[in-house]
Amino acid sequence: MWHETYLETVLKPDYAYASEHLLPHLFDALTAHSLMLSTQQLPHASAAVELLQQLRVTRFPLYDPKVEDVFFTLDQQLAAQNPQAAGAMRTALSRNDLDMTIYRLSARERLLRAALRLLNLRLTLLDLAGREIETVMVAYTHHQPAQPTTLAHYLAGLENVLSRDTERMFDALRRLNLSPMGAVALAGTSFPIDRQLTSQLLAFDRPIENTYDAVSASDWQVELACTITVTATTLSRGVHDLLLWASRGLLTLEDGLVQGSSVMPQKRNPVALEHARTKFSKAIGITQSVILSAHNVPFGDINDPGPDVQPPLDTMWREFREGVELLTAALTRPSINRAAWLKEAETGESVVTELADVIARHAGQDFRHAHAIVKTLLHHLHLAGRGLSSTTPEDLAKLGVTVSPADLQHALDPFTFVAARTTYGGPAPVTMEGALANARQRLHEDFARHNEVTQRFADARTRLEGGL
Amino acid sequence: MWHETYLETVLKPDYAYASEHLLPHLFDALTAHSLMLSTQQLPHASAAVELLQQLRVTRFPLYDPKVEDVFFTLDQQLAAQNPQAAGAMRTALSRNDLDMTIYRLSARERLLRAALRLLNLRLTLLDLAGREIETVMVAYTHHQPAQPTTLAHYLAGLENVLSRDTERMFDALRRLNLSPMGAVALAGTSFPIDRQLTSQLLAFDRPIENTYDAVSASDWQVELACTITVTATTLSRGVHDLLLWASRGLLTLEDGLVQGSSVMPQKRNPVALEHARTKFSKAIGITQSVILSAHNVPFGDINDPGPDVQPPLDTMWREFREGVELLTAALTRPSINRAAWLKEAETGESVVTELADVIARHAGQDFRHAHAIVKTLLHHLHLAGRGLSSTTPEDLAKLGVTVSPADLQHALDPFTFVAARTTYGGPAPVTMEGALANARQRLHEDFARHNEVTQRFADARTRLEGGL
Amino acid sequence: MWHETYLETVLKPDYAYASEHLLPHLFDALTAHSLMLSTQQLPHASAAVELLQQLRVTRFPLYDPKVEDVFFTLDQQLAAQNPQAAGAMRTALSRNDLDMTIYRLSARERLLRAALRLLNLRLTLLDLAGREIETVMVAYTHHQPAQPTTLAHYLAGLENVLSRDTERMFDALRRLNLSPMGAVALAGTSFPIDRQLTSQLLAFDRPIENTYDAVSASDWQVELACTITVTATTLSRGVHDLLLWASRGLLTLEDGLVQGSSVMPQKRNPVALEHARTKFSKAIGITQSVILSAHNVPFGDINDPGPDVQPPLDTMWREFREGVELLTAALTRPSINRAAWLKEAETGESVVTELADVIARHAGQDFRHAHAIVKTLLHHLHLAGRGLSSTTPEDLAKLGVTVSPADLQHALDPFTFVAARTTYGGPAPVTMEGALANARQRLHEDFARHNEVTQRFADARTRLEGGL
Amino acid sequence: MWHETYLETVLKPDYAYASEHLLPHLFDALTAHSLMLSTQQLPHASAAVELLQQLRVTRFPLYDPKVEDVFFTLDQQLAAQNPQAAGAMRTALSRNDLDMTIYRLSARERLLRAALRLLNLRLTLLDLAGREIETVMVAYTHHQPAQPTTLAHYLAGLENVLSRDTERMFDALRRLNLSPMGAVALAGTSFPIDRQLTSQLLAFDRPIENTYDAVSASDWQVELACTITVTATTLSRGVHDLLLWASRGLLTLEDGLVQGSSVMPQKRNPVALEHARTKFSKAIGITQSVILSAHNVPFGDINDPGPDVQPPLDTMWREFREGVELLTAALTRPSINRAAWLKEAETGESVVTELADVIARHAGQDFRHAHAIVKTLLHHLHLAGRGLSSTTPEDLAKLGVTVSPADLQHALDPFTFVAARTTYGGPAPVTMEGALANARQRLHEDFARHNEVTQRFADARTRLEGGL
Repeated sequence: MWHETYLETVLKPDYAYASEHLLPHLFDALTAHSLMLSTQQLPHASAAVELLQQLRVTRFPLYDPKVEDVFFTLDQQLAAQNPQAAGAMRTALSRNDLDMTIYRLSARERLLRAALRLLNLRLTLLDLAGREIETVMVAYTHHQPAQPTTLAHYLAGLENVLSRDTERMFDALRRLNLSPMGAVALAGTSFPIDRQLTSQLLAFDRPIENTYDAVSASDWQVELACTITVTATTLSRGVHDLLLWASRGLLTLEDGLVQGSSVMPQKRNPVALEHARTKFSKAIGITQSVILSAHNVPFGDINDPGPDVQPPLDTMWREFREGVELLTAALTRPSINRAAWLKEAETGESVVTELADVIARHAGQDFRHAHAIVKTLLHHLHLAGRGLSSTTPEDLAKLGVTVSPADLQHALDPFTFVAARTTYGGPAPVTMEGALANARQRLHEDFARHNEVTQRFADARTRLEGGL
Repeated sequence: MWHETYLETVLKPDYAYASEHLLPHLFDALTAHSLMLSTQQLPHASAAVELLQQLRVTRFPLYDPKVEDVFFTLDQQLAAQNPQAAGAMRTALSRNDLDMTIYRLSARERLLRAALRLLNLRLTLLDLAGREIETVMVAYTHHQPAQPTTLAHYLAGLENVLSRDTERMFDALRRLNLSPMGAVALAGTSFPIDRQLTSQLLAFDRPIENTYDAVSASDWQVELACTITVTATTLSRGVHDLLLWASRGLLTLEDGLVQGSSVMPQKRNPVALEHARTKFSKAIGITQSVILSAHNVPFGDINDPGPDVQPPLDTMWREFREGVELLTAALTRPSINRAAWLKEAETGESVVTELADVIARHAGQDFRHAHAIVKTLLHHLHLAGRGLSSTTPEDLAKLGVTVSPADLQHALDPFTFVAARTTYGGPAPVTMEGALANARQRLHEDFARHNEVTQRFADARTRLEGGL
Repeated sequence: MWHETYLETVLKPDYAYASEHLLPHLFDALTAHSLMLSTQQLPHASAAVELLQQLRVTRFPLYDPKVEDVFFTLDQQLAAQNPQAAGAMRTALSRNDLDMTIYRLSARERLLRAALRLLNLRLTLLDLAGREIETVMVAYTHHQPAQPTTLAHYLAGLENVLSRDTERMFDALRRLNLSPMGAVALAGTSFPIDRQLTSQLLAFDRPIENTYDAVSASDWQVELACTITVTATTLSRGVHDLLLWASRGLLTLEDGLVQGSSVMPQKRNPVALEHARTKFSKAIGITQSVILSAHNVPFGDINDPGPDVQPPLDTMWREFREGVELLTAALTRPSINRAAWLKEAETGESVVTELADVIARHAGQDFRHAHAIVKTLLHHLHLAGRGLSSTTPEDLAKLGVTVSPADLQHALDPFTFVAARTTYGGPAPVTMEGALANARQRLHEDFARHNEVTQRFADARTRLEGGL
Repeated sequence: MWHETYLETVLKPDYAYASEHLLPHLFDALTAHSLMLSTQQLPHASAAVELLQQLRVTRFPLYDPKVEDVFFTLDQQLAAQNPQAAGAMRTALSRNDLDMTIYRLSARERLLRAALRLLNLRLTLLDLAGREIETVMVAYTHHQPAQPTTLAHYLAGLENVLSRDTERMFDALRRLNLSPMGAVALAGTSFPIDRQLTSQLLAFDRPIENTYDAVSASDWQVELACTITVTATTLSRGVHDLLLWASRGLLTLEDGLVQGSSVMPQKRNPVALEHARTKFSKAIGITQSVILSAHNVPFGDINDPGPDVQPPLDTMWREFREGVELLTAALTRPSINRAAWLKEAETGESVVTELADVIARHAGQDFRHAHAIVKTLLHHLHLAGRGLSSTTPEDLAKLGVTVSPADLQHALDPFTFVAARTTYGGPAPVTMEGALANARQRLHEDFARHNEVTQRFADARTRLEGGL
């Protein structure tokens, strides 16, 4: 009956994917629909509910080429036991609204899983930051040593971006968690149905009002793809720096995350980070599949942003989750080479901004002038082959600036540099403590919100299974 | 001094871009910064404020290869008039936090412009929908005639997606409208500054807390790119359908949006829609430039997601805006061929779902069975070369179903089909009226919100110009 | 030993992927390497060859977390039987050059599989074109009826693009089919090896000269991704038109490629084409994963464009192949509604260019003037509510043009329109016959070339298996 | 007449773009077409040729909203002087075939410009490699020190990839340099024309056979976009490494390519490289605009892959060219810190592969065993806090291996390591000399080929201008 090619390239893989990933959602949606119909007094609908609750705990049939898909497989199972119940379930129902419902139910579950990974990574970042509040490091800008800061400052900065990403995920959930049920093919139905009830039973926030929108829209999945893209680009930047630090021995991964070489006996490669990088690249890359499936196609029910895009979405979520997991693992117990980091701060010129600040503050110069003086000083030191730390008050006096030995010593000390930066959001340990406390509180609230939503969805499932 | 290549490929174009697009934001940021410094009692800061207010109304200098960029051009203008004021302005300031501030100020302006275009399109869609509530059309699924609905139902469905896109834009604004000022190079400063005040003066919602985050993050621009992608994919789908309808004569654009041919005298091409399509394709495409500029680069201050990505962002906004404008123009006064649309509904088989519904409701069959009966009926009609509208009660009686002539006539009438679909969100005119009222109310609120934010930003500008 | 996360997200899936897809290439590469070593007189190398030939026909071990990957699994199998042979095989070998070799061997196999699908599609297109040389259709430009041509002309046009794509594939093969073997980690080796020989044994065209290039380059896989993108965009355009024709009843797919609806009894959806469209979208989309894995990463041996990108490449090939297969199936035995196509040509205005040509040729006008006259004629006809086919010589006389009744009749007949277009590459059946003969010849040569390469690779495999 | 929006978003910018970028190609194509018509004895065609040759050296009119585009502007200029010549020129001509011709003429010019930049970069790379044949560096794999090689080896490796990219560009040119002229709207014409002649006059390789293909195909521009993507990804990898080296002081750019900081007096940022990186990111990104314009659109004449995609293509070429120019500038006179590079090789463990090789060669062990011995040795050294260079024959004797002091000293010397790697394509200076000579020869041939094609196109232009 089916063309062999169609069977092999579409029907079989679709059945396999649905069997592996979508069945609980299929049962949820059909049970909620049948429950709603029974409250609307449709005969035999309550029998359909009972049958669905029984069938969901039995083994689902393997693929049979005579039956189109998992929906019709289940339809036939019901019909075999109670044709009228099967017929009732089919009332005011189309695979159009049903499928879109299932894809949204599946997507919200995956979104929550991804969000949880991100919360765990944020926790790991804040924990590590908490341990490294006094770890002075040289921050780079434009690939050159710029200023001392602390590892905690960097890590908290990264976590702060991710807290905005968590917000993005919750925002996306608001637009995802809407019920298409009752849209039927696209125009609703002439049967009296209660879309609000079906929506509530499935723990959706509300029905999608317009029934054409309900079966046609692809905005939610493109938004999910984009949410991943936003977060994954930021994480790719963090991984860039971690790999750089690993290559310079500033940070070492634990043994279980390192691989050797078949030919170079000395090798200990920080491969967990490298694989995280590619997983983020791949996650970003595959979002294009999601985007293209919604590009220049009809606005209406079609396969492109429906069943066909579920496998790429699945790959996207998986690569993203795994990338975050690898990164979290890498940052849980890394070895931090604090001495090496400090040495770079002490021997370079990254503190020199503070010297300009000190001159501006204590020597009656404006900053613009102070900046110029320090540039001249550096030029003289370079010509003399001297390091910045060898600067004396006399060097400055020659440039017309009077700075006391104590002020100078302070100005050239990276710890002092950092401690002086108590600006709101700066790296001074005392400031950082407060910032970390804020960050932990925000994270705590996000965990609570995540938990609440997860529980709400789980409760809806339990009720539909007949368990409450 | 500068390498010719660097001058031609970087410095000159950057200066040109900044001169054309960024100067007001540069003045705003520096004025707010100087105002803050003056409230912190920094000597000469208030003189800097006054100078900036004077210079912003004079003609900005043309490019001079001896000066690096617009910032240093302005710095030298100030220094020429009042070196100490210039020095004061440079205190606790870096191009790092300054640039990021300017890019955010510029982006929020563009976001609001794009959002306004989208609001206007939504208004146009709802207006047209209001005129076409009773225009029956055949909706297609999987590229085949599916069911009758109304043009209003389709258009409102599209508008509803766009209302979620508006929400996305406001969500993105929350994460965009944050102040980097005071982060200085990345670590804040040892000067006492008031980041809250600078933020308020610039009408930001609040400072970005972590100063490393402030100068490093690219999440906001990737999110903006993604916001465009989400909306543009949906619009590409709408344009697909409009072009299809135009090619079938169901919809005709007004003359000013149509082009002819140099060789084919009959041609009247709906090119406005075609160009809208490509503009959306280009807008989506160029977001990849934004994404790639934040991919696998350091998390820290670099040029990639800074100055270098501003021109692609500009192109992205422009293509998007213009695509929306063309689409809005096309939908403002199109000619709708209602008769042709109705004819398709009357002569095809798209009403046949209702016949199955009627059989299920009135003939004691469950829907599953009714669906099978109607399939058999269609098979018999096809064999006999008859159209669906020729069906008689006798035809159904032969299939064991009793349907009264009145019920049958109703079942086969597309107007009845539509009128019966009073499901929440369905196309029945009475239902649609309510849905359109809701949509208009939502749109009204979005316009109000847009206006309020726009006004808030304009007021801040006026104050910084010295006007309030 | 391994971190649980690393095991689950990297090592296990890598082993599973390699076991399913890469083993024959692993055996080929190691056997060729050992054969080369034995010709260089390295002790025990010939024993390694024999062992490899035995092991490749035994069942490969399941994953054991104590062993890193398939290479070390095989290494241990050899060592268990003959430690010295295992040691010999490891000489002048790294997983760096080995892996890159395996990925290229795998890629060339997939490229040939994809190319074969494309050749079959071209054959199907030419066969169908051969049957539809006289099937007049209205070609659209800018989504409006433009000129009559034939279905054969359209189909051959599409095939001609695909013949260039075939050329692209063979071009890509030239840059793909190069041997990294002997590059070892990156710097070659101090052992005397013969890279030319290993290359020949593996049926590579030659070694990649620079050994750093050999283990680092990602150009070949980005090119493969691009080759797919070029072809898939063209095919997406063809599918667009086929779906449009299907929606208008001009073309109907055979039953085995059509799906119905659970709620709309009349539905016969041309889903094979729709799924083909998404498969092309997905294939294009996933190429971004390949591109991003080579973006802003070190130029050197890393995981990103190595093992990590193999699964996305696999998905890319599969989606592409399956899309082509579905399209080929759809075009093998479609039902073409020639009458409906002709009717559109006869009732519309698409022939009107020829009328302008005729006026230019026979009525002493230049084309520019003739074009203007015909525009005026159409304007008059529209005002009078008349169709183009009702035009009389008198109508033209009123516009100052004398055309004989016979010339006019010819000018308005779509068959004549087509028959007159004997321009090189035009649709006139007589011209088309020649074009199709040329196309078939080109295709024949491409099949022959494909076959020859396939055979060469198969022979190399057979020799390495010990079979020749 | 035109809708204001259409005027502002489409017609005006199109005219501006065409005026700036396309006029010479417009004149070329029309002149060639008219010349062909005159050889076919079409009256007044030779007058059109003369007029076109005159008009091309006069100033082209500014935009006039009454005239649609540059073609009709020129058409009216001709008609004002000689209506019959204008009419002749319009014979057997459509903007469809004309535009596609112009876009191809423009594209081949840009392709050659880009190719020239790439040739210059290759020359620069080979020049620098020639100076650094003995500059030992530690090559990294997986972000960890791997093995000594030379800077020349790395640079030549990169150049070799680019030589394949040059080949890709020439391959793309073969498929680009085809003439659409004579396809007219899509179906050719009933006038007798000579498509071969027009093609020759324009220095195309041949006409595109099928006239529908000629006006519809987008494969060539997607291929051009892909060609850029392939090269730009490779270059992004090279830039990654150069920036890493710059951040570690191994390589310093000349002053004219470096920028300072407004707040950090010590800063000397290698910004030329950073901007090159983003330019490559942007070039890759914008190719998506080109790809999407050919995605899911009709296969036929439309605006998307025609005029609308020319500006993104222009941006793509420019960003690519400028990125290559910046990179070339950066590598022309960089300061190489050979001492620092050598020091890393001498103090680390990257030579240790050779020790394993030596043990395998001289101590009767197989490589597998030798690798294990060296791993144990490193473990002992680490425990004892000793560096690899402190290894003595006694250390090895304890592990059961006898290596002479001389052999050991050799094995641990990075120069020896490199000198021993005379494998085909390896870094040994003697080998490298030969490889560089080959590379220079290849580059020489590519320059010659580039020159020849450029000359051929210039000659055609000169002839069409009436100059030959």
